[in-house]
Parts: sequence; C-alpha cells; structure tokens
Amino acid sequence: MTQPTRRQLANAIRFLAADAVEKAKSGHPGMPMGMADIAEVLWNDYLSHNPSNPQWFNRDRFVLSNGHGSMLHYALLHLSGYDLSIDELKAFRQLGSKTAGHPERHETPGVETTTGPLGQGFANAVGLALAEKLLAQRFNRPEYDIVNHRTWVFMGDGCLMEGVSHEAASLAGTWGLGKLVCFWDDNNISIDGNTDGWFTDDTAARFEAYGWNVVRDVDGHDADSIKAGIEAALGQDDKPTLICCRTTIGFGSPAKAGKESSHGAPLGADELAATRAALGWQHGPFEIPEEIYAGWRANGTGTYRQAEWEQRFDKYAAHYPELAAELTRRSHAELPADFLAQADAYIAQVAAEGATIASRKASQNAIAAFAPLLPEIVGGSADLAHSNLTLWKGATSVASDDANANYVYYGVREFGMSAIANGLALHGGFLPFDATFMVFSDYARNALRMSALIPAHVIHVYTHDSIGLGEDGPTHQPVEHLASLRYIPNNDVWRPCDAVESAVAWKQAIVRKDGPSCLVFSRQNLAHNVRSSEQIAQIERGGYVLADAAGTPALILIATGSEVELATKAKAELDAQGIATRVVSIPSTDVFERQDAAYRESVLPNAVRARVAVEAGVTGFWRAYVGLDGAVIGIDTFGASAPADKLYQHFGITVDAVVAAAKAQVQR
Amino acid sequence: MTQPTRRQLANAIRFLAADAVEKAKSGHPGMPMGMADIAEVLWNDYLSHNPSNPQWFNRDRFVLSNGHGSMLHYALLHLSGYDLSIDELKAFRQLGSKTAGHPERHETPGVETTTGPLGQGFANAVGLALAEKLLAQRFNRPEYDIVNHRTWVFMGDGCLMEGVSHEAASLAGTWGLGKLVCFWDDNNISIDGNTDGWFTDDTAARFEAYGWNVVRDVDGHDADSIKAGIEAALGQDDKPTLICCRTTIGFGSPAKAGKESSHGAPLGADELAATRAALGWQHGPFEIPEEIYAGWRANGTGTYRQAEWEQRFDKYAAHYPELAAELTRRSHAELPADFLAQADAYIAQVAAEGATIASRKASQNAIAAFAPLLPEIVGGSADLAHSNLTLWKGATSVASDDANANYVYYGVREFGMSAIANGLALHGGFLPFDATFMVFSDYARNALRMSALIPAHVIHVYTHDSIGLGEDGPTHQPVEHLASLRYIPNNDVWRPCDAVESAVAWKQAIVRKDGPSCLVFSRQNLAHNVRSSEQIAQIERGGYVLADAAGTPALILIATGSEVELATKAKAELDAQGIATRVVSIPSTDVFERQDAAYRESVLPNAVRARVAVEAGVTGFWRAYVGLDGAVIGIDTFGASAPADKLYQHFGITVDAVVAAAKAQVQR
Repeated sequence: MTQPTRRQLANAIRFLAADAVEKAKSGHPGMPMGMADIAEVLWNDYLSHNPSNPQWFNRDRFVLSNGHGSMLHYALLHLSGYDLSIDELKAFRQLGSKTAGHPERHETPGVETTTGPLGQGFANAVGLALAEKLLAQRFNRPEYDIVNHRTWVFMGDGCLMEGVSHEAASLAGTWGLGKLVCFWDDNNISIDGNTDGWFTDDTAARFEAYGWNVVRDVDGHDADSIKAGIEAALGQDDKPTLICCRTTIGFGSPAKAGKESSHGAPLGADELAATRAALGWQHGPFEIPEEIYAGWRANGTGTYRQAEWEQRFDKYAAHYPELAAELTRRSHAELPADFLAQADAYIAQVAAEGATIASRKASQNAIAAFAPLLPEIVGGSADLAHSNLTLWKGATSVASDDANANYVYYGVREFGMSAIANGLALHGGFLPFDATFMVFSDYARNALRMSALIPAHVIHVYTHDSIGLGEDGPTHQPVEHLASLRYIPNNDVWRPCDAVESAVAWKQAIVRKDGPSCLVFSRQNLAHNVRSSEQIAQIERGGYVLADAAGTPALILIATGSEVELATKAKAELDAQGIATRVVSIPSTDVFERQDAAYRESVLPNAVRARVAVEAGVTGFWRAYVGLDGAVIGIDTFGASAPADKLYQHFGITVDAVVAAAKAQVQR
Repeated sequence: MTQPTRRQLANAIRFLAADAVEKAKSGHPGMPMGMADIAEVLWNDYLSHNPSNPQWFNRDRFVLSNGHGSMLHYALLHLSGYDLSIDELKAFRQLGSKTAGHPERHETPGVETTTGPLGQGFANAVGLALAEKLLAQRFNRPEYDIVNHRTWVFMGDGCLMEGVSHEAASLAGTWGLGKLVCFWDDNNISIDGNTDGWFTDDTAARFEAYGWNVVRDVDGHDADSIKAGIEAALGQDDKPTLICCRTTIGFGSPAKAGKESSHGAPLGADELAATRAALGWQHGPFEIPEEIYAGWRANGTGTYRQAEWEQRFDKYAAHYPELAAELTRRSHAELPADFLAQADAYIAQVAAEGATIASRKASQNAIAAFAPLLPEIVGGSADLAHSNLTLWKGATSVASDDANANYVYYGVREFGMSAIANGLALHGGFLPFDATFMVFSDYARNALRMSALIPAHVIHVYTHDSIGLGEDGPTHQPVEHLASLRYIPNNDVWRPCDAVESAVAWKQAIVRKDGPSCLVFSRQNLAHNVRSSEQIAQIERGGYVLADAAGTPALILIATGSEVELATKAKAELDAQGIATRVVSIPSTDVFERQDAAYRESVLPNAVRARVAVEAGVTGFWRAYVGLDGAVIGIDTFGASAPADKLYQHFGITVDAVVAAAKAQVQR
C-alpha cells in the first residue's frame, strides 16, 4: 500500500488493540474495533493537539469515558506520535508499563483523565469543557482567542445508563457548553448481551430534553457520515453535541462482531487470524507499515499548531501582560507569590480573634479570605450553599458570561458535582471546591476516590459532620463516613476543632497539589482553643499536643473536631483529680501519619498506653491510636432525630463518659 | 364548618406541618404546604389502604421521595387514622418520637420506606412496583387478582436532579410498570433558590424518552386538575406515569410562598399567623375540628377494603391452596420449613467435595443450590452477570411475563439497582440480591447504607474483591472497601476464604432478616480448607480457629478471604520453626463482634499479643484486632494493573511477609 485508505488507518487501531489484548490474555477488543473508524476521522481530521507536547495548554481534550477500550487510546497515542512506544503496547496490562488496563492519567502521556468507572469520564469532560468556557470568558480579548479548544468524548451504552451521565448532561445543557462534543458508541451491546432487555431509552430524545444538539443516525463505520456528524457539531456554538453513532462492536471479527463475546476477552488466536483475513490486514502483531504511521503521525502539525498559538500568545502577552502572567501562573498551578504569607497572616488573625463559631462558618470565613487571593478558585455546592456556607462576596455563577464567574450552582447532583470538579482541576487553571452534607459524600463516593487516584487537586467540603446536625435524623447523620473517607488512599481528610484549625485546613488543602482534601465541618458552634504560635504551626502536621500535662502524661486524650472540647473539659476534671492528662488534637490522621516517627512519638509516646479517643463516629478506626487496651468513645449505630445536645447525651458522647473512661484507663 | 371543602381538608395538612415545624424549631414546611392539595385528592379519593392495618399485604404503597416534607406524611397518617397521635406530631423531631425529621420505616407505622436522601425513595418505589408486578404474574389467577395494587410517589425537583432518578426511571420504563404513578412537585424552587440556574431539563420529554406516560400541566392546587391527571394515569396499564404538577412551595404563606425561604426553616410566628389569616384557618396549633377528621378518616373504608380482599383470598386459597400457602409464607418472610436442614446438608456436601474454586464460583454454586428452595429470591447484576456469576439454571428475566421471573438485568446502574433491591425487599414476598464488582459498591454506597438503616433484607454480592482481580487495574481494585463496608452500622460483611465459608455466608445472609449482608467474593481460585464439623458450625459465628497450635499459641495469624491461604502456609513454616501458631479466619468481623465475650476470648485470647493480620485491603482496620504492637500485612495505596500474582508480590502480601512479621512479633 502506498496511500492507505481510511479503513486501513482504522484497522491499525483494530489490530494493535486485538493483538495487545491477545498478548496480555485479558482486555477489551470489542470497543476499539467498533470505534476505530470514528477515532480515525476525529484524530486525523479534527483533533487539535500536539503529540510532541501533551501539556500544550490550548490542546483539545480527548476523553475515553468507556475506558475499558483503553487500547484504542493507546493505539491512537502511539500512532499519532506520543511518547508511547510499541514496546509499551506489547506490555499492555503488565506491571510497570504505561499501558494499564484502563487509561490512567498519572501513567500515560496524553491521557487527560483516568477512566473505567463508567460515566465519570463523561462528567470529567463536562468539567474540562466548563473550564475552557470560563477561562475563555476571563482571558480572551478581541482578536485574541487564547483559550479556544474543544473537548471530545467517546462514551458507550454503559456510560449512558449510569446516573452520573444524567447529572453531568443536564448541567452541560444548562451551561450551553458548545465546545463539548460526545460520540455515543451505539452498538446495542453491553456485557450481559443485547441491551434491548435493559436499555430502551430514546437517548437522542433524552439529550434533547437536556438542551443538547443531537445528531442522529451517524454510521460509525462510514467516514463521510462521521465527518458530517462532526460538522453538524461544529456548526453551532451554544449547545453541547451528542453524535449518535451506530457501530458494530468487534467490527471485523467474523464470529464475534456484534456480540458481547468480543467485549471483554481476547478474540482467540483463530478468530484473530480470521479477522486479519476478513479485514485484509496482512501484518503481524504489532507490525505497523511505515505508510500507516505516515498517515497517523501528527507531531509536525501539532508542533506547528502549538507554535502558532505561542506566537499569538506572545502578542497577547505584549498587549495584556497582566492577563498573560495570570494565565501562565494558573496554568502552571502556581500559587501567587505572597499566598503563603497572606494565609499565615489570616490564620494568625483568626487565632487572635478567638471566635467561637461553627467550623462551617469558619470555613466560609476562610473562603472569603482566600478566594480574593486565588482567582483560580471555582467553588460550588450541591444545592446547599446556605447550609454548607460556600458562598462568599465575589462569588458569581458560572451560568453567567461574567469574566470572573467562579461559583457553580450544581443543583442536587453530588456525584456529577465531584466528577465535574475533577475535570475542572484536570484542565488546569482552576482550583475547584465542591460541597454537600457529609453523609451525601456517599453519593459522590467513587468520584472522591477518583480525585485521589487520578490525582486531581480538588477540595471537597463536607459540613454537618456528625449527629451534631441534630433533628434531620439518621439519614443525614454521618457515622461511618470519617473513617471511610480517611481510608481512601491519597485522600487528606481534615476535621478541625475550631476556627483556627479550620483556616489551617483550608490553607493545607490549597497548598497540597498532588491530591484531594476533604474538609469536614460542624453545623454547631465549636469553642476556640488558645494556642502558642508553635502549636499553631504544628496544626499543619495533622496532629499535635493541644494541652499538655505537667511532666510525663499519665493519660492521653485524643480527639478531633467537635469532640476536642469534650477532651479539654475532661482534662480539666482529670487534672483536678491529679491525673496528668495530655490532650492531642488530630484534625488530619492522614497528614499526621506522614510525619516522621520522632514527631509522632513526641505527640503520642509509645510508652503511654492509657489512652482515650473520642470522636462522634465509628470507634474501630481509633483502635489504631489507642490499641487493644485503650478506650474509644464514639458511635457504632445509626443516629436519631433530636436536637444535637440531646443526641450527644443519648449516645453517651459526653465529658462524663470521657472522664470515666480515662479513670478506668489509669486504674488498669 | 359542617362539610369541609377540599381546600380546608388540605389546609389541615398545611397547618399540622407548619405548626409542628414551628414547635420543633426546625423542619421543612414548604413542601407539605405545596403538595397538600395533591395529597388530599390522592389519599381521600384514590389510595387503597387500611389505616387500621398498615401491614395489609395488598395495600397501595405510598412513598414520599422528597422525604424532607415528612410532616406531610405524618399529617396524612394522623388524619386518616393510623396509629400516630397528635402528641406524636407535637413531638416532631424529638428523641423517642415516631415523627423523625425524615420518614423512617422502622419508627412510624404507615411509612413504607425511609426517605430523605433524594431520589432513592423514587427508586425504592420502582422496586415496590416491580415486586407487585412479579407477584401478580406468579400468584394471580383468572378471577383472582390477589395481588393488585398501585405504588404512588411524591417527588421533587431534587429527586429528579439526582442521577439515581435516571437509572430507576429508565428501568421502570423498560419494565412497563403501569401501576407506578409519580407526582412531580414542579415548584421551580430548590434550596439554593429558583431552579432556572441549575435545572433546565424538559423533564416531561425526558420521561417520555424513558417510555413513560407523562401527564403535563396539572395544576397542583386544583382538585379537578389533579383528579384528571390521576385518571389519565389509571387509563393505561403498560407504562409508568409521571404527573407533572405545577405547585407553589409554601402555598398560603403571604410572604414566603414561592420562595426558598419556606423550604427548610420554620415560617416564624408572625408569618404563621399571617398564613392562618390568608387561608382562613381559625384553629390553634394542632387543633383539628372533628369535621375535618371526619373528612379524612379512612379506617372504616380501609377495614372494609381489607375484609373484601381477605374474603377473596379465602376463596382463592380454597381453589389454589398451594399458591395461597406459598404467598402467605413469602409475605410473612418465613423460610420454607426445611430450608435450614437443606442448607446445612448443602454445606456439608461442599465441605466433602473440597473444591478449590474462586469464591465467586462458590457463590454461584450456592445460589444454584438455594434458589430452587427459595422462589422468593430475585437476583440480578449491574451488567456483570458472567463476571459476578449471578445467573443460575432457572433464572428468568423480570422483563418477561414468565410466572417465575426472578432475575433482573439491571444494566450498568449500581445505585438504581441497590435502591430498587431495597424496594423489592420492602414490598414483602421477595428476597433480593444484587451484584457488581466490589469497587463499584461505591456507586451504590448510600443505597447500601439505606439497606442497613431501613432496614431491608437485601443481599449485596460483590466480586473481584481485591488486587486479586489483576489486570483491570486500580480503578477496579478495591482497597478501602472492605473496611468501609464493615463500618456501615447493621451491615454484615462476609469475605469467605473458600467454598465452604462461601456457602455458610450465603446461608447466613438468607437467614438474617433484620438487615442486609454484603457477600464479598474473589475472582481467583481459593484453596479448600479441611475443617471439623465443629469448625464448620463455628463459621456462622463470624470468626473461629481454623488451624490451631498444640497448646497455648505463641502467635495468632488473623486472615480473611484469599489471604487465609497465606496464613495457613505461613503457619506451616512457623510451626516448623517451633513457633506455636494459631490461624483465625474471620469471614465476618460484624458477626464475630456480636458473639459473647467468652467465645471471642476463646478465639482471640487477650493474653496472646503476638498477632499478625493479613488482608489485601487497608491495614488500619485490623489494628482493632492486633493492637498497637501487632503487625498488619495489607495495602494502603491504590493497586496497579498487572496479573494478580505479580501484584501480590509487588505489594508484599505474601507468605514470606507474613512469616517475617510473625517472627518479629514473637521476638518482641
């Protein structure tokens, strides 16, 4: 072949995918074989990117929401010239390779987000597209469309069945994200077989109901039809587009095309050979003729594209030096030079004021203090702004065209919210926070996990953090959530005990770039604690001695959040009874565990085994701090509906209970 | 007044709600005031129930999915004659009352399901309606529509924004649940204000896209319009109906009607007085004139309705004694008389066979053994039937009209699945199980919590329970999930180590009526363990000595699931080195913790502190079993994509690691 046909270019994807799955003895050949023709048209004719620099800021974003088809993505990256060698493709799904079973952003250059958990890639893409819209509003100037790119999404039936697709699609429609273009791989097959038995939605009508531009009846194996669909998307600016592509899963496989058997397992040697024959592909596994590579390589055009943009950006910088500097800073995720000093000054001010307020109010104060310093902050809540206290002066809805739009009214959509926040963070240029009642972190749970896994620099604000929320009752009272959130790897959970710790928690969540933080706040007022400047500095270490005994402590009380006040009051009683008591506040066990052993020993001396932990949550978690012989005051059942003070009494989370447990400890 | 008007009847709801919220100083008056007219028409003209017997099997089910409007429900129950006194209404949101902040099934007679977490009540209702359809298919006979009732749902904008509404509505459409009728409280207000900024869906068109019958433009404050809407729903049988009711939140409040300020806080004394004046309600708080009660009371008609049905049932029982006995048994949630004996015989058989198979396969074998004994089982998977291994001979799709339909192809809808399973369980007559990969329990997380809180007798099957799933990588590998699921109160988690424990786990999950169980299974093969009959009996206790030392153990190895084999192999090495080692298998820490202290001490003697726990999950959880000085072998980071055996080596979860940790323990 000299000038390969489009089908031959697409077949390179098909066989790289099928051969890699065959070699790995696991994986998903069906989707890459089914979407190869769409991918070929999109990547060769439309996608604006630079394989030589996956970080080019104004690149189009491509998201594979049906992430099990990862080999499609790896094939595209390899063929178009990203730093992903054929040897990496041969090492598909092997330890240490850049070609994991599902696309992982931290492993593979060119992967914009980690996908696999269905529906979330799509929701991430809504966040990516929103980020582009907001940056364009903020930074573009006449003749300088510095931020101007599209977000393209591949998604399957599975993504569309997931509830998060509803939440994200609804918001994308409300926001009119005209540069978001999604391809629905309408192959009528999911893992259990033909979807007629469980997926009968009129998806096109559904998306029109969200205010989307819907392109029906595209033949996903016909380049002209695909191009016409894309052109229909490009022809309008104010609505996101869904292109409905009829495809055949496992296209080309004589025995398995159109069947679920091609979805999630190798084709098998015989069937793979039959597919080669059927598609006229005469090359061995992982052998790609140079003509095919030539048809795919995009390094040249990509480098040209980027250079052209950089020229434009240089002129923009000459005309608008402050804007250019600001965009550069934000796109590099650098904090303003004076942020740390300003944050520390704010913390000192909070300490000096010594206010006794709810930590959710302290959180709002911290937002109000930090947001003016950080225009990259884009906040929001799942319809609980006045309960989560997430609004601040200067918050402006992203549904507007305001250049400083920075607040998302997410509606009652916790999962979509957090997945969109992940997308906002991944785009670059933004530091998103989201918010809901802590118990409803459950709804967003896998998006939180993805924040940590991707990782994405997102701040999750959770208020109403215990039975302290009172009358709304057990459906709204977190019990197991603190422990469960702490156990998510790479997720920093903070539960501050007063306004000072709240301000520090916010600062640390902002400073931390390599993952998410969950900031957990109370509904009820929390007493201020007096601290030395050394103690204030130690809050950043996650745990510290808040109130010490004279000399070696006989007893250590460990607490977080609203229960620190119980511990300090208990200490007063115990001290009066001659029991030398230390109070340790551990607002973040995650951060505390990362401290060096000497520091941890200084806070929790191994020799002092008379220990009581108190937290209005499950007790098991604290066994890691008090051991088999210590005591834990907490709650291992669901809560109840009543005023908060009644509940604390009812469930025995009281000063008296702490004192009693402590005395039993020292008498052991 | 002698014959109250409909509006006056509805106003009784409005003022019971507003006065109760006022007295409690918290709660949500806006929704009850907005939906009172709809509720009045539904309850007085259509709802087929018996307030004197909330358990009457053929009653209509009423679900308040927008559960924050709980006072509407309590007012309806009180007025129509349920066992819910005016004193209970006065004790709204107080400790020990039957009138919690949100409706709780276990607290209040007449509440079908616990609601508050938005969208889930609706999904529960889809399960209730599916249960009715399936029971009707199974038990009705010509002239004997023994099972024939409707499911009515109130839902708000919040429910419709939630993703779970998409999943549940889609399935309801696919299944053609013609007796499901939902009222959308279309008041254009959510907590953050006018929904125009975040909820712009064409909801009517969206539900038509799901195949629903949609009744548009009902005036939710006009009884004739409401009746016409309901009649339009009753006029067809093969589609669920959404009745779109335009309403005014806080209807009647001069200053707060139509505003979010009426949503979630007391109106205030002055505004409440103004509302009384505006609506012409001249009665004091909690004063309901006898004429109003007379207009509401439904005990007489309800008792008559039930008596009529019982007469019909008696005739049915005469004609079809076996069917009647079966329905009676199932509706009383009684197991067949011989079930326990049969189950134990099956367990003994599994033990005798001693197969080394994946526990997911052992689970499938258990299902195949138990399902023929238990026609109440209705299973399903979120599009992973062939991975979760949830199909068995005799499984028939509920999308069919088959009398024995018992399998739900849920599609890729984990949250909707588990919320629907909760509804199936709540209806009575069914024992549902659902299934997905363990990591995707995240998607359903709050529905699992609701299974435990309601409580609902549901079995959640989670396969691919660790890095042992291998190549799919960290997006699919649970790490924190075991601990997180165990921390949900009233949720029994089982992680069996072989086919025998798997069979026992299934038996216990079936026998347990007062809450859910999570059954956690491996992808990979697990070695059979030889046990005495006493040991087999002890599996039911959640934890037991699987392999003991001769004499007092010097060391205890604790393990679950796939890691038990590592422990038993380590024991062999350690025994050979003269270290008297006990292996304790704890398939269910939840169940083990419920055992008496003496039994727990016999398994884990307090004096033996040389302890090593091994589980392929977060280590912190096991500190509750090994203390500060013991060792835990596990994984506190995300996994990776590679073959399972490579991953176990890579993450150091190996026999060698257990042996090394154990030797360090005994040398302490």
